[in-house]
Amino acid sequence: MPKDASSRRAFLGAGALLGTALGACRTQESAPPAEQELPSLLGEPVRRYGARSPHETAARAIRETQTPEASSSRTPLGDSYGTVTPSALHFERHHAGVPAIDPAEHKLLIHGLVERPLVFSVDDVKRLPSVSQPYFIECSGNSGGEWSPAGAPTVQLSHGLAACSEWTGVPLKMLLAEAGVQAGAKWLLAEGADACKMQRSVTLEKALDDALVAYGQNGEALRPEQGYPLRLVLPGWEGNANVKWLRRIKLTEGPQYVKDETSKYTELMEDGKAWIFTLEMDAKSVITSPSGGQTIGAQGYREISGLAWSGRGKIVRVEVSTDGGGSWAEAKLQEPVRTKAFTRFTLDWQWAGGEAVLLSRCRDETGYVQPTLAELIAERGRKSAYHCNRIKGWKVAADGSVSNAQA
Amino acid sequence: MPKDASSRRAFLGAGALLGTALGACRTQESAPPAEQELPSLLGEPVRRYGARSPHETAARAIRETQTPEASSSRTPLGDSYGTVTPSALHFERHHAGVPAIDPAEHKLLIHGLVERPLVFSVDDVKRLPSVSQPYFIECSGNSGGEWSPAGAPTVQLSHGLAACSEWTGVPLKMLLAEAGVQAGAKWLLAEGADACKMQRSVTLEKALDDALVAYGQNGEALRPEQGYPLRLVLPGWEGNANVKWLRRIKLTEGPQYVKDETSKYTELMEDGKAWIFTLEMDAKSVITSPSGGQTIGAQGYREISGLAWSGRGKIVRVEVSTDGGGSWAEAKLQEPVRTKAFTRFTLDWQWAGGEAVLLSRCRDETGYVQPTLAELIAERGRKSAYHCNRIKGWKVAADGSVSNAQA
Repeated sequence: MPKDASSRRAFLGAGALLGTALGACRTQESAPPAEQELPSLLGEPVRRYGARSPHETAARAIRETQTPEASSSRTPLGDSYGTVTPSALHFERHHAGVPAIDPAEHKLLIHGLVERPLVFSVDDVKRLPSVSQPYFIECSGNSGGEWSPAGAPTVQLSHGLAACSEWTGVPLKMLLAEAGVQAGAKWLLAEGADACKMQRSVTLEKALDDALVAYGQNGEALRPEQGYPLRLVLPGWEGNANVKWLRRIKLTEGPQYVKDETSKYTELMEDGKAWIFTLEMDAKSVITSPSGGQTIGAQGYREISGLAWSGRGKIVRVEVSTDGGGSWAEAKLQEPVRTKAFTRFTLDWQWAGGEAVLLSRCRDETGYVQPTLAELIAERGRKSAYHCNRIKGWKVAADGSVSNAQA
Repeated sequence: MPKDASSRRAFLGAGALLGTALGACRTQESAPPAEQELPSLLGEPVRRYGARSPHETAARAIRETQTPEASSSRTPLGDSYGTVTPSALHFERHHAGVPAIDPAEHKLLIHGLVERPLVFSVDDVKRLPSVSQPYFIECSGNSGGEWSPAGAPTVQLSHGLAACSEWTGVPLKMLLAEAGVQAGAKWLLAEGADACKMQRSVTLEKALDDALVAYGQNGEALRPEQGYPLRLVLPGWEGNANVKWLRRIKLTEGPQYVKDETSKYTELMEDGKAWIFTLEMDAKSVITSPSGGQTIGAQGYREISGLAWSGRGKIVRVEVSTDGGGSWAEAKLQEPVRTKAFTRFTLDWQWAGGEAVLLSRCRDETGYVQPTLAELIAERGRKSAYHCNRIKGWKVAADGSVSNAQA
């Protein structure tokens, strides 16, 4: 493994050095294969709305439940490129299904401890000052299976309750300024328009910081399963609090202790007490390629690529080990690193054909470092299913197949 | 119009100041509308691959031709949010239709003036060092109708042959380093695998700068109409040179003067001479909202929003006029500004209900300023259909309807 930029250059810079695998790429100049005739049939015409190639079959993995309206689906991170998650593949977690909402009928009410209760139509919201920023959204139950040493066999199953989109919307603080927040208000209750009237309590501090009432996702309207036509986006906070199909914001003195703040989305400690309102997602990274279920086809150069993110700001460093933690190399971060968004990291690697265990660990701008499973358990015990951000390992076998490594 | 940040605060900061329009948003706290009962039917279940709401109908506008395989379709920029163009809405320009390519069969040949001709499979390319960056792609014929004073009636028709995606791929310079570029090579010929074997000449300088062999777009595989499985991405260069379905790169001494460099994609000057290889796209901006065909529904606050881009680097300034050029205000740029990518700009505006003419003009980091039509014609004459980047105007009528303004 290269240790510094000069050794990186040594196997990438001077030609024919990408490893033995590229030997297979050499051809005879006398008979370049692509000179052969191609079919000259015309292809498909232009069309109004595109679709992907039928050869591309990446799909969300659905959790089988008795009521599929209260289920989840996971982003196929093993097939991801860059930092944007295609909206069609953004994970889902619904508690009463995806409501069919006519945006011309939808309203957002802001009331409670305000000077002037206001009702906004979607058009009202879209007329106001907007911002567009990429933010990850992650279910606090993401990687729940990683509390066990082996964890899940693929990165879709281990980390697929996370995704990153460019969200466009109005800063919530602007809507609150219009309504006029009363002095006693310290929290708000956000409510969705789905059948269960999904509710979560949010601090006024967060609402006045970077919270958005979003109507755009990746350049077009929010997708239905992401809250169309309006979603509360709370950058860095657990997905459940990013209330979809947002219909109501009520300013309150304190939190409301709704069901998803008491029976769910809390973290039970070993002493029987529970942590509650653990809303910021901790820094996490995972290698997406190569990852469990994939196969490395040939020896030689093979880029290691993955994603890192933190609910507390920017990722500042990712390290990768290819020997199960014996040594670590600093990965390259795709610049510019964005706050509370997916950061793509890459590392040059030569696979010599033997066994290898690949790990990644990240550090965010607060100085926090992603823990091992043992470190995480030492701090939080083993009773919680939420907020697992342990270092995840992939084992490369001698035949190139990749599976989940024991922590 | 606000002239500075303090006046911006004066109508946005203190509540109930977003203009008379938000008067309509006020409600009676005693009967908040959203307290009424909602239907409690379960919504749609999770699914493997999502789709947009049936209420969202933005579509590419297709140019009617006798052979729809050799046509174009335009991005609905009037319905755009942020900086990403949804892949399904990215404009198209095909010369022989979209070929159906099996990525397992596709090859990329690099030959000509190289030390070692190489053939890459798609998997070979995807194993190599990758980068992910947003870049716009714009047809050099974009805004061709804007050479006339009135221009096109909607922003889709006037500027829709442009789009911006996050592209993931391998720097072309890495592939060329593997092949070994011979000393005499100064250009290359790029060729596509469509039925017409689309070809363009590219300078070696560009190939060794920021050119990518891309396989990813907006987090998933390239879309078929954008070159699946491999596309040459030449950031900032006219769309036609970003060869889709890339199958062959031949290193050469000079350009090849292929048909799209002689009969097309050249700029005829008034003296009968033609500019050729005018590959960098000039800085351009356009207001997307409000824009032609839209209607401003109510007086009061109405954000002005648009897009700016330059083939020569970053946009550093966008100014907006709401009085047909009598006065200009500096728009806010969505940070961070990315090189050779769409930059979203916004301006706070109070529509008083009368007529208004909205203009935008941008400046890029080279100091170049987007010209008026008169300035453009003074430099380049009126014989070319390509590379029109004049300032575009939208006229707001007293009833709120928006149409194209005369230049």
